[in-house]
Amino acid sequence: MTIPGEGQINSVGEFGLIAEITALLPQGENVLIGPGDDAAVVTAPDGYVVATTDMAVEGIHFRRDWSSAAQIGQKISAANLADVVSMGARPTAMLVAFAAPRSLPVQWAMDVTIGIRDEAAKMGASIVGGDLASNEKIVISITALGSLDGRQPVLRSGAKVGDRVVLVGTTGLSAAGLALLNPSEVIDSIDADNFEELRAAHRTPKVEYELALAFAKCGAHSMCDVSDGLLADLGHVAQSSGVRCRIDPRKLDVSKLTDAALKLGVDPLMWALTGGEDHAFVGTIAADVELPDGLRVIGDVVAGSGVEVSGLDVSKWQAGHDHFQSTGR
Amino acid sequence: MTIPGEGQINSVGEFGLIAEITALLPQGENVLIGPGDDAAVVTAPDGYVVATTDMAVEGIHFRRDWSSAAQIGQKISAANLADVVSMGARPTAMLVAFAAPRSLPVQWAMDVTIGIRDEAAKMGASIVGGDLASNEKIVISITALGSLDGRQPVLRSGAKVGDRVVLVGTTGLSAAGLALLNPSEVIDSIDADNFEELRAAHRTPKVEYELALAFAKCGAHSMCDVSDGLLADLGHVAQSSGVRCRIDPRKLDVSKLTDAALKLGVDPLMWALTGGEDHAFVGTIAADVELPDGLRVIGDVVAGSGVEVSGLDVSKWQAGHDHFQSTGR
Repeated sequence: MTIPGEGQINSVGEFGLIAEITALLPQGENVLIGPGDDAAVVTAPDGYVVATTDMAVEGIHFRRDWSSAAQIGQKISAANLADVVSMGARPTAMLVAFAAPRSLPVQWAMDVTIGIRDEAAKMGASIVGGDLASNEKIVISITALGSLDGRQPVLRSGAKVGDRVVLVGTTGLSAAGLALLNPSEVIDSIDADNFEELRAAHRTPKVEYELALAFAKCGAHSMCDVSDGLLADLGHVAQSSGVRCRIDPRKLDVSKLTDAALKLGVDPLMWALTGGEDHAFVGTIAADVELPDGLRVIGDVVAGSGVEVSGLDVSKWQAGHDHFQSTGR
Repeated sequence: MTIPGEGQINSVGEFGLIAEITALLPQGENVLIGPGDDAAVVTAPDGYVVATTDMAVEGIHFRRDWSSAAQIGQKISAANLADVVSMGARPTAMLVAFAAPRSLPVQWAMDVTIGIRDEAAKMGASIVGGDLASNEKIVISITALGSLDGRQPVLRSGAKVGDRVVLVGTTGLSAAGLALLNPSEVIDSIDADNFEELRAAHRTPKVEYELALAFAKCGAHSMCDVSDGLLADLGHVAQSSGVRCRIDPRKLDVSKLTDAALKLGVDPLMWALTGGEDHAFVGTIAADVELPDGLRVIGDVVAGSGVEVSGLDVSKWQAGHDHFQSTGR
């Protein structure tokens, strides 16, 4: 008798692992053909499909000693779903390419799949296919598909002078959590248990998918997901749209950041303005549109270029990440 | 002045590299929104999208000392396109996730992109998005999308008793080429230049996409691409369909294999029956359908299970590859 999840992946082999993983994957109503053939077939009801891909590498995007397999899967899944939602689209399906060392426990591979699956299920998306390969480090590359259901995509380039800048979700929690996970003398000296919510936000961000879709549906002119930090991602909107975006920093919610910032001696606004992995959404919308509850107006759009934070010199803070130049993520 | 392709990727940075790569990517008529936003938007004219993903790892799926960057890109691209085509679908778009060491020459990243792009362009597909990450070894994960244009997908599970087994393309060339690339005393003793065509077939297989689509359109009951070897992949068809497939080995074209097989002391049928990376296609179709020129009937479908090669004991040959158990690819 084979016990699911037992042993290392080299003991069950590629096809055994595929079988164990596939058994975890119910297929939703968007799926005509799921895993097991050369390709999947997914509905695209309005004649268009939204598609995005994100690759996560162990030691850079995640650490097995900081997060469980399910948490890692959930977070990578969220990054892909957020990219689909930021176009104003409903996620429908995912494909997952997974490279891992042969010694990886089967249970880890199953748990990461469960994490990816469960986060995708929040938006009704199924894992419809994938691929396996061996590599010294774990590499997870997800492609997410989505449907606009007849709407126009919400682009980075649609911001207009006179728009309000709107934030969906809260930024900075994940960056604060990362700072609290990084071992240091300061971290050791503070009561770690006080900040479990921030660490949890780094491990598994709570993404406001439905609120972002509601923002799109009520007529957002532009949107992108905050994966590189609010300054950097709003900067993409400003650049693509040929406008200047102004943020009023008093409009940012730093209430959950202030205690930890004080302990670590940092400005909570640095986390809120440069932290990326919360997968909040930032966009712009005309001044006269009534907004759904839960959206936060944080600024406005004027003629010019770039991003300005009123009363604050933000040039001292690194804006966004560069995977080939930074030593960080 | 920046010279495109100069330096290592850490010198141009993630965003510099994205800019250099994106400049190489014209967008075809299937593409509503291409690279540069959070996600791409691609046409899916009949309301369905075909999607498949394949991940290739340096040292396992390809070697930089055996193949140029453009050749490596072309081959990985072909593997994905073949998966779409084997469903009877027309490739429309690709997303490419790419991990590489920071010291990689920018030119290599550009050349691999060109290889992927040019192979995709053969079928009218554009690279619409991607992601970059850093990793010690190069990892390339491609997702290919396609359109059935109103047709039903051709599945592995559709083979019927009484069908003919049809091979699209030639198998074994890539496996022979691999044997000739692997250094050994025997290889050193034979005149390498004689077999350049086989080595080329391993580096950049010539995939019969259009012929496979023609096979689908004339009513194929089943099809899959031969990526694991004819025995293994036809075995998938037999198993999914609940039938037995019989191959007449005299119907296989081994004419280009015999000289090299003689020199290396192997049976050319071993290459033709177990070699995978040619990305030929195998499928089944009713006995009374007139077939387009270039398709090769290699057997028939009977009641039972498994694959039989008339007059040959093939149990001695490994059928297919396992990435976590074999020491090979």
